[in-house]
Amino acid sequence: MKLFDGGRAPNPRRVRVFLAEKGIEVPLVPVDMGAMGHRGAEITAKNPLQRLPVLELDDGTVLTESVAICRYFEELHPEPALFGRGALGKALVEMWQRRIELVLYAAVAHAFRHTHPAMKEWEVPQVPEWGEANRPKAIEFLRILDRHLQDNQFAAGDFFSIADITGMIALDFMKPARITIPEDCPSVLRWYAALKARPSATA
Amino acid sequence: MKLFDGGRAPNPRRVRVFLAEKGIEVPLVPVDMGAMGHRGAEITAKNPLQRLPVLELDDGTVLTESVAICRYFEELHPEPALFGRGALGKALVEMWQRRIELVLYAAVAHAFRHTHPAMKEWEVPQVPEWGEANRPKAIEFLRILDRHLQDNQFAAGDFFSIADITGMIALDFMKPARITIPEDCPSVLRWYAALKARPSATA
Repeated sequence: MKLFDGGRAPNPRRVRVFLAEKGIEVPLVPVDMGAMGHRGAEITAKNPLQRLPVLELDDGTVLTESVAICRYFEELHPEPALFGRGALGKALVEMWQRRIELVLYAAVAHAFRHTHPAMKEWEVPQVPEWGEANRPKAIEFLRILDRHLQDNQFAAGDFFSIADITGMIALDFMKPARITIPEDCPSVLRWYAALKARPSATA
Repeated sequence: MKLFDGGRAPNPRRVRVFLAEKGIEVPLVPVDMGAMGHRGAEITAKNPLQRLPVLELDDGTVLTESVAICRYFEELHPEPALFGRGALGKALVEMWQRRIELVLYAAVAHAFRHTHPAMKEWEVPQVPEWGEANRPKAIEFLRILDRHLQDNQFAAGDFFSIADITGMIALDFMKPARITIPEDCPSVLRWYAALKARPSATA
């Protein structure tokens, strides 16, 4: 198998961090997203949505969507479990994974894509008013997350999971989106520092 | 346990359709979203994101996010499997579930919330330009989905899954969002008719 990788972009990085936590090595095929390589003929033929990463299995089967690729490896290599254990554990991971992705990560992505000059050709049309509307949405979620993290070491409770990986990716993405963690969110800052200190953070 | 339900809204309905497919009955507590019941004190205490549905277990544990609630029931009642079987099957369900939700459903929801007069107090600020920008995104995805459904009975392949439920919910949501399935998408129309003909569709 091989993983068509997109470098610094958040979703390719999410899969690399997941693989590092699992201790799995997969041959990477770098694709230059800055040169729009993800919209070239090779990637478009594999993923008509023109997104990375793309996992190609030895029989030619293609898997896209970062979380789907992670779930495939979770099934093949169950330990350490990063999607939770048992019905409630798995549901709590899914819940926090979705909250962090659909509320925080989405708000950060919209703020970045709709206000950053470098995204003008990526996001057509750019709607700056929509980008600006997302900054307070991200901050509001961080305050809710902070209250949760006062009583919980990790996003889904007392164990590390893919919800934390998505959280680190989203918080890293805040820098180019020019959103800052508010000072009244000490638990988010503690959590973020702990995630960044893991060896997987540099993957 | 009890399920705080939101009536016609897409995510509460997604869980009810899922439960109908599983043959599981859960006591429902209706919440009037038209009267902003999901932003009242009771729901806010259970879900600070003020969204429905909310599942409350007998010990008081709260699960939110429709797909997390569905996954909980999948683990407790594995048959019929609606999140796929085996590593590849589960990954394909996750992939199509995410594609349909993050691209199609999200575009339809943004079009609805940012252009419909009834949503003015729900989506603040409404950004009509962003709403309009989402209509062509939905249509573009439907054409990609149509090519996939030419060779596949269901979203994830030859078996019914939660990705199909999310698809039906998204296509139903297109009506109030005033987006129509293009006539050059016969496979989407065939798929949608088959989903609407299942007994679960009226849940």
